[in-house]
Amino acid sequence: MHIVDIIAKKRDGKVLTKNEIDFFIKGYTEGKIPDYQISALLMAIYFQNMNDEESTYLALAMRDSGDSIDLSDIPGIKVDKHSTGGVGDKVTLVLGPLLASLGVKFAKMSGRGLGHTGGTIDKLESIPGFKVVIPVKDFISQVNKIGISIVGQSGDVAPADKKLYALRDVTATVDTIPLIASSIMSKKLASGADAIVLDVKVGHGAFMKTEEDAVKLAQLMVGIGKLAGKKMTALLTGMDEPLGHKIGNALEVYEAIETLNGQGPKDLVEVTVEIGAHLLLDAQIESDFEVAKIQLQEALQNGMAYQKFLELVEAQGGDVNSLLDPGLLLSKKTVEILSEKEGFVMDINALDIGKAAMRLGAGRETKDDEVYLDVGLDLHKKIGSFVKKGEPIATLYVRDKGIDEAKQLILDAITIGKEEKKIVLIKQTIK
Amino acid sequence: MHIVDIIAKKRDGKVLTKNEIDFFIKGYTEGKIPDYQISALLMAIYFQNMNDEESTYLALAMRDSGDSIDLSDIPGIKVDKHSTGGVGDKVTLVLGPLLASLGVKFAKMSGRGLGHTGGTIDKLESIPGFKVVIPVKDFISQVNKIGISIVGQSGDVAPADKKLYALRDVTATVDTIPLIASSIMSKKLASGADAIVLDVKVGHGAFMKTEEDAVKLAQLMVGIGKLAGKKMTALLTGMDEPLGHKIGNALEVYEAIETLNGQGPKDLVEVTVEIGAHLLLDAQIESDFEVAKIQLQEALQNGMAYQKFLELVEAQGGDVNSLLDPGLLLSKKTVEILSEKEGFVMDINALDIGKAAMRLGAGRETKDDEVYLDVGLDLHKKIGSFVKKGEPIATLYVRDKGIDEAKQLILDAITIGKEEKKIVLIKQTIK
Repeated sequence: MHIVDIIAKKRDGKVLTKNEIDFFIKGYTEGKIPDYQISALLMAIYFQNMNDEESTYLALAMRDSGDSIDLSDIPGIKVDKHSTGGVGDKVTLVLGPLLASLGVKFAKMSGRGLGHTGGTIDKLESIPGFKVVIPVKDFISQVNKIGISIVGQSGDVAPADKKLYALRDVTATVDTIPLIASSIMSKKLASGADAIVLDVKVGHGAFMKTEEDAVKLAQLMVGIGKLAGKKMTALLTGMDEPLGHKIGNALEVYEAIETLNGQGPKDLVEVTVEIGAHLLLDAQIESDFEVAKIQLQEALQNGMAYQKFLELVEAQGGDVNSLLDPGLLLSKKTVEILSEKEGFVMDINALDIGKAAMRLGAGRETKDDEVYLDVGLDLHKKIGSFVKKGEPIATLYVRDKGIDEAKQLILDAITIGKEEKKIVLIKQTIK
Repeated sequence: MHIVDIIAKKRDGKVLTKNEIDFFIKGYTEGKIPDYQISALLMAIYFQNMNDEESTYLALAMRDSGDSIDLSDIPGIKVDKHSTGGVGDKVTLVLGPLLASLGVKFAKMSGRGLGHTGGTIDKLESIPGFKVVIPVKDFISQVNKIGISIVGQSGDVAPADKKLYALRDVTATVDTIPLIASSIMSKKLASGADAIVLDVKVGHGAFMKTEEDAVKLAQLMVGIGKLAGKKMTALLTGMDEPLGHKIGNALEVYEAIETLNGQGPKDLVEVTVEIGAHLLLDAQIESDFEVAKIQLQEALQNGMAYQKFLELVEAQGGDVNSLLDPGLLLSKKTVEILSEKEGFVMDINALDIGKAAMRLGAGRETKDDEVYLDVGLDLHKKIGSFVKKGEPIATLYVRDKGIDEAKQLILDAITIGKEEKKIVLIKQTIK
């Protein structure tokens, strides 16, 4: 088998076999096939696409290039969720304890943030003492004991994907749906879960800008997961504005705590409950979707979910007392942003809001950047809100950098006009 | 300017500017842009094409990556010809002396053979003593003195093209008409000639298998040459069977001498005279195309062309006496191939005939292979010939290798049937 023949085959629009896909992923991971041949192949895939089977073989080959997590020591159905990345997306922080409080096994490995989107692991580290690196053995026994653990990725998960992603980034082949789908799924399939809900964000703050592309990506990922034997659901949810009000690591923990105490913002609750209901059914804890939603809402109201969150924090070494007043986790230095206009908020460009938080130090522009856990911003208005001139529209929690830039980004990101817009948050469900 | 933006632009089907093309060729030649980005760009070009202007800028950028030959010390109009590569193509050996005998300045740098096609420089080296490496100064003064010199490429001509071609070869992006055209033209534009005739071969023994592709390539190369200020003509000529009868280095010199003495095979004479007539007009030595053809045919018949060939050989140190009986230049060991059938020759697969000669040692499979100058084959039959069973159809001139393989290739390459086919040699002229 020769890589140049595989390139020519894909270039000519033919379907690659499992053997051919295994060959090039193995050869590339081992350094036997050079970057310049793989980048030509990636560009050929950009133009000629891959079908469901090819994308599945690619995801499996990348999964098998590294370590997979074995969760078989946890009895029952293990669930996982994945978001394609949004601004203010703290769903995992709420969903995990919420599901665990209802008896679901939530054994999650999460990532750090990069670019304008945050990462669950960074957010959890804003709780003093919270340990995100723990041995796999302890991770599993914690899930068996309290039903939940959230840790950073351990081991060498899908190194082929890491290598391929770095190459795509510099060869203009990132925006290729089969490559995005197999990249995400290679890591999800390594996570050991039996049922997976994918939260595919769509809108100007998301990777997928159009609903058409988001549907294609969602369908392909669901197809890959099913071919690999997983229970799969994908939701298309809007990223037309940030999720909730708070953006930044400790700020998002703060808003998660509010939500776990039944005081969450409507959009965050809606997405969390929707995802949770699918997973309650997948985990065979409930069989009726509407009943499942009611159970989830009740667990947010009656303190069960928050209680589980405190158990999680305690089990991973976090200071539970620090959560009694989570405002103390935020930077003391704040800056109010006042509206320069009066009217209805018609648009909040989530991408630019995410960038504003990043400039303040809440996120990383490159992998090596330091993150300030206590900075970020609190949006007081959402799409459809009415705002008066001079009224505060956002509060910045700052340290020493990016304040003016963030302020300008936020003012430019918010469109104020005459129309009282309503937006649809959950756009489609793909099974 | 960032290479990843240039890749994305071409990927999206947009037209690259001269600056962008200069940027990536310069960056690649200097090693500042890595192979893996250029190979992604090449694949994007494969799918999105380049227009005439882009292909011209590419050819010029590659020309300017290295040395160009300055022929300004030769008064008058300098001409050049280029063949896209055929089997048995010894046109340059005949055309050069023929044109020079009529007063045209023929200052040619030629290449060596690779694969199933031969190279003029290897062929000339089969004449004992013939020097193909001479200083540029002497090359120019020889042309001024006797009207002709044929030498190997000197200097570092179009290094960007060499680098790019090597990359195309391993990334399945060779068959890309704008890349083929700009590759050929980068070297032609470096050759210093004012008028160029391109002999674009089409058929199963040629790089271009269909007339449609050959026309596209021809039109693009003519367009590039004109935009660069050259007088351009492209002929589409058939490579449905080898040109002439003899294939192999000394064998082709032998057939060239026969042709220069008015005893040449019909197809070789036809192509040579056609190309020559265009160049006689371009060089402003004759103004009527049909008259030019008659003058060329006369110079083949009356010894003028052969006389000029002898001058060329002598001027470059070759042994003129060795040409009195050119049969002495051939291997003494011969093998006759007898026809296994009776009927008309309906097809001679030129590619396989070229491979047969290569297996005997007449050509190189890789750049480092040694070439036997005295081996090859003499085809006694052409398409349309009648052959009896047991009659010799070819004579192999051999040393110690490839005999059985060559024999089988030749028997398989020749189709014998009931139809007396006629083929059209000169298919189109593109100005």
